[in-house]
Amino acid sequence: MSTRAVPWASPVSKSAGGSETLFAAIAEATRDGPGVTRESYGSGEDVALALLERHGCDAGLACERDRAGNLWLSSIGEDRDDPAIVIGSHVDSVPRGGNYDGLAGVVAGLAVLEGLKVDLPRLPPLRVLALRGEESAWYGRAYAGSLALLGRLPSEALTLRHRDRPETLGEAMARCGADVAAIGRRESLLPHRVAAYLELHIEQGPVMVARGWPVAAVTGIRGNVRHNRVRCLGEAGHSGAVPRWLRHDAMLAVAQLLARMDEHWRVLLQMGMDLVMTAGICNTPPQSHAVSVIPGEVVFSFEARSQDAGTLSRFHALMRDECSAIATERGVRFEFDEALTSTPATMDEEWLRRFETAAERSGHPIERMPSGAGHDAAVFAAAGIPSAMLFVRNDHGSHNPREAMDLPDFEAARHVLQAAIASLSERPVTAP
Amino acid sequence: MSTRAVPWASPVSKSAGGSETLFAAIAEATRDGPGVTRESYGSGEDVALALLERHGCDAGLACERDRAGNLWLSSIGEDRDDPAIVIGSHVDSVPRGGNYDGLAGVVAGLAVLEGLKVDLPRLPPLRVLALRGEESAWYGRAYAGSLALLGRLPSEALTLRHRDRPETLGEAMARCGADVAAIGRRESLLPHRVAAYLELHIEQGPVMVARGWPVAAVTGIRGNVRHNRVRCLGEAGHSGAVPRWLRHDAMLAVAQLLARMDEHWRVLLQMGMDLVMTAGICNTPPQSHAVSVIPGEVVFSFEARSQDAGTLSRFHALMRDECSAIATERGVRFEFDEALTSTPATMDEEWLRRFETAAERSGHPIERMPSGAGHDAAVFAAAGIPSAMLFVRNDHGSHNPREAMDLPDFEAARHVLQAAIASLSERPVTAP
Repeated sequence: MSTRAVPWASPVSKSAGGSETLFAAIAEATRDGPGVTRESYGSGEDVALALLERHGCDAGLACERDRAGNLWLSSIGEDRDDPAIVIGSHVDSVPRGGNYDGLAGVVAGLAVLEGLKVDLPRLPPLRVLALRGEESAWYGRAYAGSLALLGRLPSEALTLRHRDRPETLGEAMARCGADVAAIGRRESLLPHRVAAYLELHIEQGPVMVARGWPVAAVTGIRGNVRHNRVRCLGEAGHSGAVPRWLRHDAMLAVAQLLARMDEHWRVLLQMGMDLVMTAGICNTPPQSHAVSVIPGEVVFSFEARSQDAGTLSRFHALMRDECSAIATERGVRFEFDEALTSTPATMDEEWLRRFETAAERSGHPIERMPSGAGHDAAVFAAAGIPSAMLFVRNDHGSHNPREAMDLPDFEAARHVLQAAIASLSERPVTAP
Repeated sequence: MSTRAVPWASPVSKSAGGSETLFAAIAEATRDGPGVTRESYGSGEDVALALLERHGCDAGLACERDRAGNLWLSSIGEDRDDPAIVIGSHVDSVPRGGNYDGLAGVVAGLAVLEGLKVDLPRLPPLRVLALRGEESAWYGRAYAGSLALLGRLPSEALTLRHRDRPETLGEAMARCGADVAAIGRRESLLPHRVAAYLELHIEQGPVMVARGWPVAAVTGIRGNVRHNRVRCLGEAGHSGAVPRWLRHDAMLAVAQLLARMDEHWRVLLQMGMDLVMTAGICNTPPQSHAVSVIPGEVVFSFEARSQDAGTLSRFHALMRDECSAIATERGVRFEFDEALTSTPATMDEEWLRRFETAAERSGHPIERMPSGAGHDAAVFAAAGIPSAMLFVRNDHGSHNPREAMDLPDFEAARHVLQAAIASLSERPVTAP
């Protein structure tokens, strides 16, 4: 990564040094083996919030916790009641995850707040939001901090158990000072009105490295449709003694299904649709499978993601249709668990254009791309708040200690974010 | 099964009653839950051999054990040195298996010996052979009894361990009175010269039930080529964040491979080849797979069987070629364990014709078919002894307590076997 050319020559600003120090301090305080561990509504997350708070005090910011336990940082004396521009992301991590996943967005917000210090009076109120509980790794539920804040956390989620302990999410939230009763009543706990939610995040896939893009504007966050467990039931038999015309081979049926769906996927991409498809789990039953036994059962998962809800539901229907056709053709049966869906989130077009204009003016290249992974921005967008995201190039994916973001890429994205917000102070261009 | 019409009206002979009694007595003595358990070179097998020996004595037969522990039964006074017609099969079973798998062939041999009593002087010596150790379930090696008898058991096989105990196959053989030193030296332990080996066996697949054939003449025993463990290695990644063009999905690669091979298989059958193909095991790794993770690894098995060695080796090469093509196309890698092969065995054409002639004369329908499962007859054929097999219709496969052979079908096959042997006493038809 260190040899990668950065296609512009802006010197790393003073704030970059501050960001680097903050990244290092929080990594050090939450280090766990080769990575960092910042448990949702737990200790590493507490430590990170405390360090951000101390940094905020040192930088002359006002710090407050909302009733969902998240941390807000604003300029002292910012008491305007106008809807605020909120720059946020999460501070928790997966077990032994990477330092930049989430934290980059909060640190960028602080740098922007510092960078726009003199412009603040001419801009809407600007606030940095450090969210808790974004990762699903701890309680099996993503976005707990932002959902609780916006009054959108299903109350059943409070009873979810920790992956290793009997403690529930509700108990952990209470321990962190959250108002669990209000969260259970699904009240909005926003302490300020919000005009927009902006999030900078490392890319969690390989696209930007492959394309050579340091910064990207996120067009939307893919929704998904998912079956965690599909069973294909055929008929077990002696691998030598049953001819093809009498076989009901569950494995060949599933192979045919996946190969067909893969080919449909290829064609639909060619036709311009946004789509990814994954069968992450596929197993013949370990207690009965054998090299010389025709598989009578295969269990697999199926997931599709798209920015477009119509594409998702039609691709899901196509998969079910192919299952029916294969079932008839091969004398097998498919049993589906309930399909789980999450709706795609669309990012705010005005903010996308502001990002692009800001990048263009400073000679930074910027491209548009969808986010395949989920982010808190999807929660804000679903609540009707104009939301937008910037991605920073990052190698080796995320949720592992090998994530690799270069500071100049971070600085470039931070610059685009800051310039886009600064542009709000400009007089709108009117037609002559 | 009991309502199935038998297309000829021969009354169930006296010997059928004797066979039925013998089947029942041996089932009773080796019963284990819903099935029977007759361990190779172990207790249930000993019990079955002892009951057959007692039955032989009662019927006035001479009984002897060969140096591999197998039981031979012949008419008292049969001291001719001419090569014998041997009717044999095995008496061991898989754990909780079915009563007819193997035993049917020995019981048929005894019935034929009884049925041909008066014809014996005009026939070659006729002997019944009750083999030990055919099932691989106990020591991981099939045909131990016939291989040891013919001096063809690899000496390493003697060190194979029992599935549940530390005892080795060699120790078990010694316990049963076998001459393990001679077996280790791979000496032929045949106590008599053999003109032909004839085996009646239940079909272990569903073809005869599906076709409505009570009896079939076996054309050959399929050989196989097998990989117990192939690994396809791709690259794991976030199921939402990696677009298709950057994926190296091991599961979709394996699905494509199996779907292609399945299609090739369909076409090759259409072109008249004998072939079956099975991927009995296919797994994403349980310790790391997840619904939202692109599979970076899949482990699977691959097996093909055919009566034709050329078809086998070419189909295997085709599979390896498809793996190479898919590896290039998808950026994945296939790692193969050593291919294990077993050579197809061809049954003796003269005996096949004798079976057909005998069936035709008595108005019994008989069809030809290959055996997908392995049998001791393959061992005798590989040793250069003319060998032939008859299959008896049997429902629900074998290696399970649900196997279902109807006695009239058994009687029909026994009749064909007996008439074919009896035909040896006829003066050969010479050209005028």
